Amino acid sequence: MATMDNEVFQAFVTHAAVVTLKMMLMGPVTSYFRFTRGSFSNEEDVARKSDDEKKKLLRSHPDVERAQRCHRNDLENIVPFFFIGLLYALSGPDLSSALIHFRVFTASRIFHSFAYILAFPQPSRGLSYMLGMLTTLSMAYNLLSKVFVP
Amino acid sequence: MATMDNEVFQAFVTHAAVVTLKMMLMGPVTSYFRFTRGSFSNEEDVARKSDDEKKKLLRSHPDVERAQRCHRNDLENIVPFFFIGLLYALSGPDLSSALIHFRVFTASRIFHSFAYILAFPQPSRGLSYMLGMLTTLSMAYNLLSKVFVP
Amino acid sequence: MATMDNEVFQAFVTHAAVVTLKMMLMGPVTSYFRFTRGSFSNEEDVARKSDDEKKKLLRSHPDVERAQRCHRNDLENIVPFFFIGLLYALSGPDLSSALIHFRVFTASRIFHSFAYILAFPQPSRGLSYMLGMLTTLSMAYNLLSKVFVP
Repeated sequence: MATMDNEVFQAFVTHAAVVTLKMMLMGPVTSYFRFTRGSFSNEEDVARKSDDEKKKLLRSHPDVERAQRCHRNDLENIVPFFFIGLLYALSGPDLSSALIHFRVFTASRIFHSFAYILAFPQPSRGLSYMLGMLTTLSMAYNLLSKVFVP
Repeated sequence: MATMDNEVFQAFVTHAAVVTLKMMLMGPVTSYFRFTRGSFSNEEDVARKSDDEKKKLLRSHPDVERAQRCHRNDLENIVPFFFIGLLYALSGPDLSSALIHFRVFTASRIFHSFAYILAFPQPSRGLSYMLGMLTTLSMAYNLLSKVFVP
Repeated sequence: MATMDNEVFQAFVTHAAVVTLKMMLMGPVTSYFRFTRGSFSNEEDVARKSDDEKKKLLRSHPDVERAQRCHRNDLENIVPFFFIGLLYALSGPDLSSALIHFRVFTASRIFHSFAYILAFPQPSRGLSYMLGMLTTLSMAYNLLSKVFVP
């Protein structure tokens, strides 16, 4: 198909797949913290344990909640990147300009996850969040200045 | 590329970008409430404060939670709109019919955000939620009546 | 448009629409539990009730929280499926191979929802979650082995 012959679209495919895989990784990271910290949400997940143990295991744990906040932040930011980025990639931007947008976004979100899970001192996490958001806003501006049919 | 020469697709691009930008705005809205209400989730976000202040700042606040529920509701509704709407726009619908769907959805979600953040009396928020959902369902019906390869 | 003449793309459209509709269904399921269990999050949702009743209705309920966790898990898994699956469908895979991926994913997520809402004994829910994730990972591997422009 025509889209896959286009180098901008190929670059979008690559970066979109990489950040999506990164986002998917947050599922196993959360599971890892659930098992190592002993913190579950569902009765059926601890069915084989004694009643005493169940009570302890059905509590929240700060590390699990942190992983979930990181995952949620990914959804809130990677979803808009994919939506805007896909339409932007189809709108025929310069390859060099598109590559800068995709690379900056991907790098900012990979850094953001390390900053969140490992609790780096602020403002490192805040700045990487803002950088990713600004990249998406820049693509949206570029897109809407070319296509606007309200 | 062919898609961007098509008026239905251009209309989808416009409305999809607008509702995605509206959804992204919920991030800064939540941050605004975090700073003005003094309500944070991460130790490192309040690292420079005294121990007494930290305890107060690491509590939840109703306004922050309300903004988060609004953001989550956006994800739960704008994501399906984008998925179904993109495929619907590619399936060659009438321009007039497509424009009605896109405009009603966009308007319903902008109203929904005001209704949520400003706590309008019900059923205003509930009705705007349902209107947006019905618009997406109507596009899904239209799409699947043309394309169905299970 | 070219995409809609392609059988792989038609199969993607069908399965993507079905799992998106399934995900949208979690909204009404949550509402159902809110009304039958009497559990709301917003003051304005219980405005007509007496002050005594309000207090009771503004509490969380395990069934509402379970439906919300199921909905969130859908977002965390169906969003990556759509992103990766769309790009995979555009990359020209074999029809038979694509159909296996789409069908296994759709079946695994429908089963997952029943397993979550009806609290099936584990590891049924965990295995259906992993099966869906592996399907998406397999498509991502297939996609990135064809297209990689970082």
